Amino acid sequence: MVNINEHSITQAVLDRLDNCDNPRLKTVMTSLIRHLHDFAREVQLSEEEWMTGIQFLTATGHMCDDKRQEFILLSDTLGLSMLTVAMQNAKPPGATEATVFGPFHIDHPPQYKDGEDISNGASGEPLFVTARILNTEGKPVPAARVNIWQADADGLYDVQRPDLQTNQARGILHSDEQGRIAFQTVLPVSYPVPTDGPVGHMLLATGRHPWRPAHVHFKIDAPGYQSLITHVFRDDDAYLHSDVVFGVRSSLLGKYIKHEAGDTPDGQTLKTPFYTLNYDFVLAAEGVA
Amino acid sequence: MVNINEHSITQAVLDRLDNCDNPRLKTVMTSLIRHLHDFAREVQLSEEEWMTGIQFLTATGHMCDDKRQEFILLSDTLGLSMLTVAMQNAKPPGATEATVFGPFHIDHPPQYKDGEDISNGASGEPLFVTARILNTEGKPVPAARVNIWQADADGLYDVQRPDLQTNQARGILHSDEQGRIAFQTVLPVSYPVPTDGPVGHMLLATGRHPWRPAHVHFKIDAPGYQSLITHVFRDDDAYLHSDVVFGVRSSLLGKYIKHEAGDTPDGQTLKTPFYTLNYDFVLAAEGVA
Repeated sequence: MVNINEHSITQAVLDRLDNCDNPRLKTVMTSLIRHLHDFAREVQLSEEEWMTGIQFLTATGHMCDDKRQEFILLSDTLGLSMLTVAMQNAKPPGATEATVFGPFHIDHPPQYKDGEDISNGASGEPLFVTARILNTEGKPVPAARVNIWQADADGLYDVQRPDLQTNQARGILHSDEQGRIAFQTVLPVSYPVPTDGPVGHMLLATGRHPWRPAHVHFKIDAPGYQSLITHVFRDDDAYLHSDVVFGVRSSLLGKYIKHEAGDTPDGQTLKTPFYTLNYDFVLAAEGVA
Repeated sequence: MVNINEHSITQAVLDRLDNCDNPRLKTVMTSLIRHLHDFAREVQLSEEEWMTGIQFLTATGHMCDDKRQEFILLSDTLGLSMLTVAMQNAKPPGATEATVFGPFHIDHPPQYKDGEDISNGASGEPLFVTARILNTEGKPVPAARVNIWQADADGLYDVQRPDLQTNQARGILHSDEQGRIAFQTVLPVSYPVPTDGPVGHMLLATGRHPWRPAHVHFKIDAPGYQSLITHVFRDDDAYLHSDVVFGVRSSLLGKYIKHEAGDTPDGQTLKTPFYTLNYDFVLAAEGVA
């Protein structure tokens, strides 16, 4: 086959997979090549546009380092991340839904005890969180490992502050016998995803805003249950209906209630207003979908 | 819309393009998002596979620098480059066909005069090339700018040799009043594309070889004619039917004829065998397809 044209080339490329001995890889590559070629034919991609695409991908790769993952941001903003989460995290009725992992998780955050302040100096209005970890029968799940992370009052995660020597507004707690956890942190605020790179330029060029509604991340693991990666959003956020990464689900809206200065749920007396959040997470048993 | 599922998410992402004031960008992004999502749904992409894809793209970006373009190599090996060339370079009957540009072109190669040796010390068996630049009516095209580049006997382009201080086996000549050019160079050989990066790993994992059939690159520009970017392949190469970048067209096969030691076409006497190639390039007039 040496007279390939714009139509016959697709089968010619697929024929090269004949010796692929990994059936799943062959399936994925076949679909990828078909859609890539169909896309190019559908828009009659010009050589200049092709080069723009090459340069965009190259710049996206060059923006990635151990603190920043621009390709995850690209996937998030194109809806691919949430699509993958939605396909792979079908939950039984009543279980808390999953959402995007995001680029700001770290593997070894600090450990905290029940009731402690995980903000560790992060800026923001005080927030007191109480939550229960339950199963779909409403029974408590004790000793669940609850990993929490969030942005501060400036909309920045600790890992986005190069000068910061410690972790802020993130940590791990474990649920008690009644499945409860309680901790102090700071009120999350809506924030823009980083806009100084290729993905930010894409958002601007396509007339999109870069904002995410305020949320706290939770990753909850307990023996016998499916791992749950999710957020709890502020139910009054202006960006709930236009989250730049499409991560909002109505079951993940939490009531962040404002209180005037005075006594807090954990027995402190504050001279400034503070917030409380109470939320129940429901884990799906392993093997149930 | 806060209860997006794996099906409704595509329209939700497309709705975000409502404020895109660049109609062409909107068209391209719409098709890209649809095909990206269709691909993920079709293969039921897992979260682990998604992460493998993120890591592959990141590594591909990190391999790119001013000497190497791994994303072009990825596009080439997936057939996207040749598909784009084929769509955008429809030629009138009789005109020489275009093929991939490749990653080894440079902007300012050395200038040579008619009959000179452009190899400039590159390794390889001597090759004497004569060619004519014609139009589709068979008339000569004088003063055409002919940019030539190729790999040496090791299958390497000069830019792939970091220690080399000069350009080898590349240069620019101009056609004479009869549309003729003549130059000495070295015989091109088949060579593998670079396999030490992510694209090489992809070729290996999918059971593909990395070889390109032997060829010399030509980029020909003349006032009043469409720019022609093409190769002339050795018509006896073992990889003609399996070029890893799908660039071969039967009209681009040249006869590289072997001669025993003795008198060359330009009046030298060589003690070793040498090759000759004679080929006519036919340019399409501007505005004709």
